[in-house]
Amino acid sequence: MKNIRYPNGKPAYQPEKISVKNRGIQTEKLVNEANDFYLNSGRAVIHKKPTPVQIVTVDYPKRSAAKIKEAYFKTPSTTDYNGVYNGRYLDFDVKETQSTTSFPLRNIHPHQMNHLGAVNAQGGDAFILVAFARIEKFFLLPYDVLSQFTFRARTGRKSMTLKEFEDHAYEISLSFKPTLNYLDAYDRWKH
Amino acid sequence: MKNIRYPNGKPAYQPEKISVKNRGIQTEKLVNEANDFYLNSGRAVIHKKPTPVQIVTVDYPKRSAAKIKEAYFKTPSTTDYNGVYNGRYLDFDVKETQSTTSFPLRNIHPHQMNHLGAVNAQGGDAFILVAFARIEKFFLLPYDVLSQFTFRARTGRKSMTLKEFEDHAYEISLSFKPTLNYLDAYDRWKH
Repeated sequence: MKNIRYPNGKPAYQPEKISVKNRGIQTEKLVNEANDFYLNSGRAVIHKKPTPVQIVTVDYPKRSAAKIKEAYFKTPSTTDYNGVYNGRYLDFDVKETQSTTSFPLRNIHPHQMNHLGAVNAQGGDAFILVAFARIEKFFLLPYDVLSQFTFRARTGRKSMTLKEFEDHAYEISLSFKPTLNYLDAYDRWKH
Repeated sequence: MKNIRYPNGKPAYQPEKISVKNRGIQTEKLVNEANDFYLNSGRAVIHKKPTPVQIVTVDYPKRSAAKIKEAYFKTPSTTDYNGVYNGRYLDFDVKETQSTTSFPLRNIHPHQMNHLGAVNAQGGDAFILVAFARIEKFFLLPYDVLSQFTFRARTGRKSMTLKEFEDHAYEISLSFKPTLNYLDAYDRWKH
């Protein structure tokens, strides 16, 4: 399907170009806030993992903290979030798209799919949280469902439509505290 | 109890002084090797978390990788290891002592106890792996048992004896592959 073009000849919207750059930083803030709330209220223990860094040079000045002078970002081998909720192992990543109509599946990296698949095989609950940021719609998408769509993407459509999220994922409605109460969507998935 | 002193007047052995410096680096290697083995053989998905770092300055040179030029180590708010095994959430830290007779409980930091307690309350399996490095004895110590001894330490003995490990923890016997097959000790705990 071609993009609809406005009279100036440019495509009206290039969702993929935008969404790749935006890695869900804003939505991660909401997830972190929810995790703090869950931790403090005793509902769940879920943390974001630190960014993996390859440390090359460290300075140890007298009387002050060790200073890392040279380091590089490493590709993570897992997802960003995991933890325990009511005896269950949860593992997920957060993704954000600026598109109002579909989520490009290339936002999910192979190492993330591999990790989520391994977690799923081990009996953990693997999923992704997807934000359609512009229309403020949020979904919990179980790995099992996601893997069907990444399978389809091998020969067909490379993205999931908003309609497919509405039909196959669990929508997270915004609430007061925490704003993004994603464990309620998790509960709907599991019950 | 005073230290036994040799004729030169120096204490024969100062286990606490040594053990605080040694934070279990060698044993961590064995745990990482076991985790690789578990991951590749499909037995479990357990990873060490990256070292948390506060990044201050990053350089983005053209045509090469982003370089972190100033960063500092942060105190972790959790333990170093977690993951999923057979549907169960596992969470633990690795500790090493050079003492041949006891494990000083101040090796375990308050934030680690808090985190393990929260995991335990949430129905996860919280524990520590303790290495008596010099005599090559390794134990899995469940959080529930550990917390009884940290409670005792408030008014009494500040360490756990090797005998107490033998009586109340699960010993990990060394094997060929992986060397430190700690999930076997976990299985004995759970069955």
